[in-house]
Amino acid sequence: MSDNVTDDLKASALAYHRLPKPGKLAIQATKPLATQHDLALAYTPGVAVACLAIAADPSEAATLTSRANLVAVVTNGTAVLGLGNIGALAGLPVMEGKAALFADLVGINGVPILINETLPARVVDIVSGIATSFGAIQLEDFAAPECFTIEEQLRARLTKPVLHDDQHGTAVVTLAALINATRRSGVDLCASVIGQIGLGAAGSGIVRLLQAYGVRHVLGTDPNPGAVARLTATGGEGVTLTALMQRADIVIACTGVKGLIRPEWVRKGQVILALSNPDAEIEPLVARAQGAAFAADGKGINNVLAFPGLFKGALEARATRFTDAMLMAAANAIASLARGDELVPDPLDRELHAHVTAAVRAAAGE
Amino acid sequence: MSDNVTDDLKASALAYHRLPKPGKLAIQATKPLATQHDLALAYTPGVAVACLAIAADPSEAATLTSRANLVAVVTNGTAVLGLGNIGALAGLPVMEGKAALFADLVGINGVPILINETLPARVVDIVSGIATSFGAIQLEDFAAPECFTIEEQLRARLTKPVLHDDQHGTAVVTLAALINATRRSGVDLCASVIGQIGLGAAGSGIVRLLQAYGVRHVLGTDPNPGAVARLTATGGEGVTLTALMQRADIVIACTGVKGLIRPEWVRKGQVILALSNPDAEIEPLVARAQGAAFAADGKGINNVLAFPGLFKGALEARATRFTDAMLMAAANAIASLARGDELVPDPLDRELHAHVTAAVRAAAGE
Repeated sequence: MSDNVTDDLKASALAYHRLPKPGKLAIQATKPLATQHDLALAYTPGVAVACLAIAADPSEAATLTSRANLVAVVTNGTAVLGLGNIGALAGLPVMEGKAALFADLVGINGVPILINETLPARVVDIVSGIATSFGAIQLEDFAAPECFTIEEQLRARLTKPVLHDDQHGTAVVTLAALINATRRSGVDLCASVIGQIGLGAAGSGIVRLLQAYGVRHVLGTDPNPGAVARLTATGGEGVTLTALMQRADIVIACTGVKGLIRPEWVRKGQVILALSNPDAEIEPLVARAQGAAFAADGKGINNVLAFPGLFKGALEARATRFTDAMLMAAANAIASLARGDELVPDPLDRELHAHVTAAVRAAAGE
Repeated sequence: MSDNVTDDLKASALAYHRLPKPGKLAIQATKPLATQHDLALAYTPGVAVACLAIAADPSEAATLTSRANLVAVVTNGTAVLGLGNIGALAGLPVMEGKAALFADLVGINGVPILINETLPARVVDIVSGIATSFGAIQLEDFAAPECFTIEEQLRARLTKPVLHDDQHGTAVVTLAALINATRRSGVDLCASVIGQIGLGAAGSGIVRLLQAYGVRHVLGTDPNPGAVARLTATGGEGVTLTALMQRADIVIACTGVKGLIRPEWVRKGQVILALSNPDAEIEPLVARAQGAAFAADGKGINNVLAFPGLFKGALEARATRFTDAMLMAAANAIASLARGDELVPDPLDRELHAHVTAAVRAAAGE
């Protein structure tokens, strides 16, 4: 546990999760069930009418059931937060948190699905086997490189939106922050040299989206040769950490290693996003004191800015998949609502999520 | 669609399912998410405290998450109501109905899980693969004989309550009705000759529970030789339909065949439960006119009397499985609350479900 998490926060977080009832979710009936007539409509014999309507036309499931607004929040617990492979059950509080945010911010029904499997083929079989239950699938806290295979195969097999949030949700928020940082400093983001430290799920997702956005120069570093090979296959360049700090205009770090970036490496005018939670690779205040033009950490660049509106927009559009256009529309919507000197807006602003939803829905329709 | 389902009911049922929002379920956050402090507790960084507590002691999942009150309502849609194999998606309105009743009657979170597989081994693999997500598993509308294999294998693999409601929920309510019918007519249920017409999921479950209760003489009939073989393996006797009507003191029918029991076959003093929905094998009024001592149909003998309290009691007791003692405790609790000349009580009576819950919880603890 990080030094940033005080004993007071620990006690408060445990009490929050425990009281007055365990956990963060409740499922409720949205229709009356008070009379025998209600029961005859909701259950036998009236429910048969709804069943037969769907059997005759499966698209009626969107009008007669809650499925079109239901998202599975799926994990196998192999890369939970910065805590590593703690298992699916120990990851459940994060999944309930995602589902609670879905409910509270955009009115999506989210349900945690815990999978006790690490082999990608098994995970894909299990998720595919229950996918009919849901309008969309959010993958969460799957470790790299298995996360890439799992997402790719699920996208190929399912005709509904599938998104690994650690890759693409984080990428959307990072792109939003960079749109604002470069616009304010009069820099062309697409012409900037990006230095990505850490090429796991988040780092790979960020590089991928930046390249789709039009960024041409990407440097990357990672202790894992396979991760670097994935980068070079997309036209990026593998370098050392110190070379990256020397050459990059924009440095993004997703390593989980507290204090990895030494203050003396920061160059004047650099943009630095040190995204690891709960402890950043360099504290934003320290980076700014060393001359960074903009600096932020993962507490600001929070994927809760993106995922509610991404899924709500995709569901409202009845999209069959997430496209880069939808991700970029979300990033632009988020960037446009930042105020003052913030790179991104307040994630608890409900209007923000309505704005992202509308942008994603419009992009899905194009 | 049955003649009993009027055009008016059809229109009302469709409107009920569609308006004001599609479907019957909503998932909500139970804890505040209004401030940055709330977000720090529910999500990063505070949620890590809950994750680590569960990683250190998995039993903490019951105090820090909603899992211990979450039931999967699982189907593959192979035997939905009396509609047959209409597929998992078309069965969803029934699953949402079960989940809505769970929420409304006993405050359980129920979530529909649709499985697009018919092979028992595949169904078992998929349900086992996601079972960590839930406190208990309700199997629903799986066709016989696959339902027997699926339930048996899941019970063997999982250390949490698993119940195929079509077998055991219906059996509990049927036993409750028979306890009252025989008590009022001064007959010894265990010494009575039971005639079970239809030996599918419901019929087999009824026979099994009656035998566990102490019934010694069971006759059965079914067009499927395999179903009759399952009966004779438990000490029952396979007979023709007319022989069954001649010899049985208590006739129970679960065939889905409207009007199967001819009025002239009914003998004076018989107890007749014609349970098929929406159309009974014989109308209770007709059976009573022919001299039946008691007669009821499936609209009265509704498994919604049993399943909410069965699951709530099992979850509250943190039971690892459903036992016959728990099923019989539920049946006795239901029977004890019937009023007047009803064989079973009103399923919308909340006190009933609290009473069943307490009885099941006590039986689980023994």
